[in-house]
Amino acid sequence: MPLHNEILDALARRKSVRVFTDAPVTGEERAAILEAAFQAPTAGCQQLYTILDITDPALRARLADLCDHQPMIAAAPLCLIFLADCRRWPRAYRAAGVTPRDPGPGDLLLAVADACIAAQNAVTAAESLGIGSCYIGDVLENAEAMRRALDLPAHVVPAAMLIFGRPTPQQKTRPKPRRFAAGAVVCENTYKDRPEALLRADFAAREDRPDYDFDADLQAFCARKYDSDFSREMSRSAAVYLQDFLPGPQQE
Amino acid sequence: MPLHNEILDALARRKSVRVFTDAPVTGEERAAILEAAFQAPTAGCQQLYTILDITDPALRARLADLCDHQPMIAAAPLCLIFLADCRRWPRAYRAAGVTPRDPGPGDLLLAVADACIAAQNAVTAAESLGIGSCYIGDVLENAEAMRRALDLPAHVVPAAMLIFGRPTPQQKTRPKPRRFAAGAVVCENTYKDRPEALLRADFAAREDRPDYDFDADLQAFCARKYDSDFSREMSRSAAVYLQDFLPGPQQE
Repeated sequence: MPLHNEILDALARRKSVRVFTDAPVTGEERAAILEAAFQAPTAGCQQLYTILDITDPALRARLADLCDHQPMIAAAPLCLIFLADCRRWPRAYRAAGVTPRDPGPGDLLLAVADACIAAQNAVTAAESLGIGSCYIGDVLENAEAMRRALDLPAHVVPAAMLIFGRPTPQQKTRPKPRRFAAGAVVCENTYKDRPEALLRADFAAREDRPDYDFDADLQAFCARKYDSDFSREMSRSAAVYLQDFLPGPQQE
Repeated sequence: MPLHNEILDALARRKSVRVFTDAPVTGEERAAILEAAFQAPTAGCQQLYTILDITDPALRARLADLCDHQPMIAAAPLCLIFLADCRRWPRAYRAAGVTPRDPGPGDLLLAVADACIAAQNAVTAAESLGIGSCYIGDVLENAEAMRRALDLPAHVVPAAMLIFGRPTPQQKTRPKPRRFAAGAVVCENTYKDRPEALLRADFAAREDRPDYDFDADLQAFCARKYDSDFSREMSRSAAVYLQDFLPGPQQE
């Protein structure tokens, strides 16, 4: 029998919410969501992130456009962007009279982890208040325009974007998409590729419908997601952000 | 009055635990922790991670050495490594007869986010069972040796490492380090640097002790953390992992 308690059950139940009622997220709720983010584990207690609370309707509309044209971003009661911030601490070092090294890719990945760990605490806190949420991975796209829209300086990179609000009845009853079984994503000790027959079985088990066609489904998913324009744009854009963190000729 | 409920209070209370009692993490508890990770939000429901459960004592000892020589890694009752996995889905695409593009830096950052979001659900689940945890950022270091130790193929990158166990009485009573006030890490709409006077005040407010000396403290922290050998190694090592994701002459 799997273990149960209020928190495990809440984590299991939580699913992404993309359509919200008109009910606002109150100031108290917003404060509780942010406080949960701050209280998340953070490398060396540095909080290597800055959180943008996007309240300006014009900026919301711009973000909806920049993030693969998703109007729900403009409509959501609350919208937070978690920025991996490799700038605050070096600024403090310089204020203290130290000339620190330039941030490198290790600093970026550590800050991205910090930001995402904090973001997930915000998600769990919101859920406990009856407030649904959805990550918007597209915040990584369009680096140049995003930097202008958010006034991002060098060494500050969008790691996660979240929209929050109360789920509509349809969103509440929508089934949560099934995950892979543990054997598909957990290895003991070292990384092992799943042999192709098991890989196919992993995907089929997740779908659990009689008409599932692995080849057709993966072909369609690849075209729609992985080989899509927005996915290619995400990698182009991420490379622009990375330039700040790479030594040598990339940095002009 | 801040909002309270069982989940908000648990997130606020949770602090890192680095010293564990001998009590094991049971199979049921391990299953509940992993299940919470799987149930986390994930981009396109892809679960862009593989979780390594490190059970081999010799491998644990090796990891303790590779992660800045921290013996607690070898001693912890449970040790999970969350790998950003940009290999599973392209393998599935190829099995389905598609020739997908190479993974790029956008895929890596999305998978790192996925892995860290799942890891933080594992932390929250463990906490609800009375099991403490600690992230080990050093898992990003020593890419070449880490790849050999964990059999990591290209496009699979350590995003987070967690150790778990029951806190000793000393760890239970240890005060949780204070976070920055909201004003120090939240901006409305666009990114704004804190003017130096406020930046100094942000750090002083977090410390809240009469003998706090901003300059001396930041100088010492920079030397101990940001400009340390392990931090420089982290960026060197991260650049090695990144090579797989960058187009052009970097990839031989």
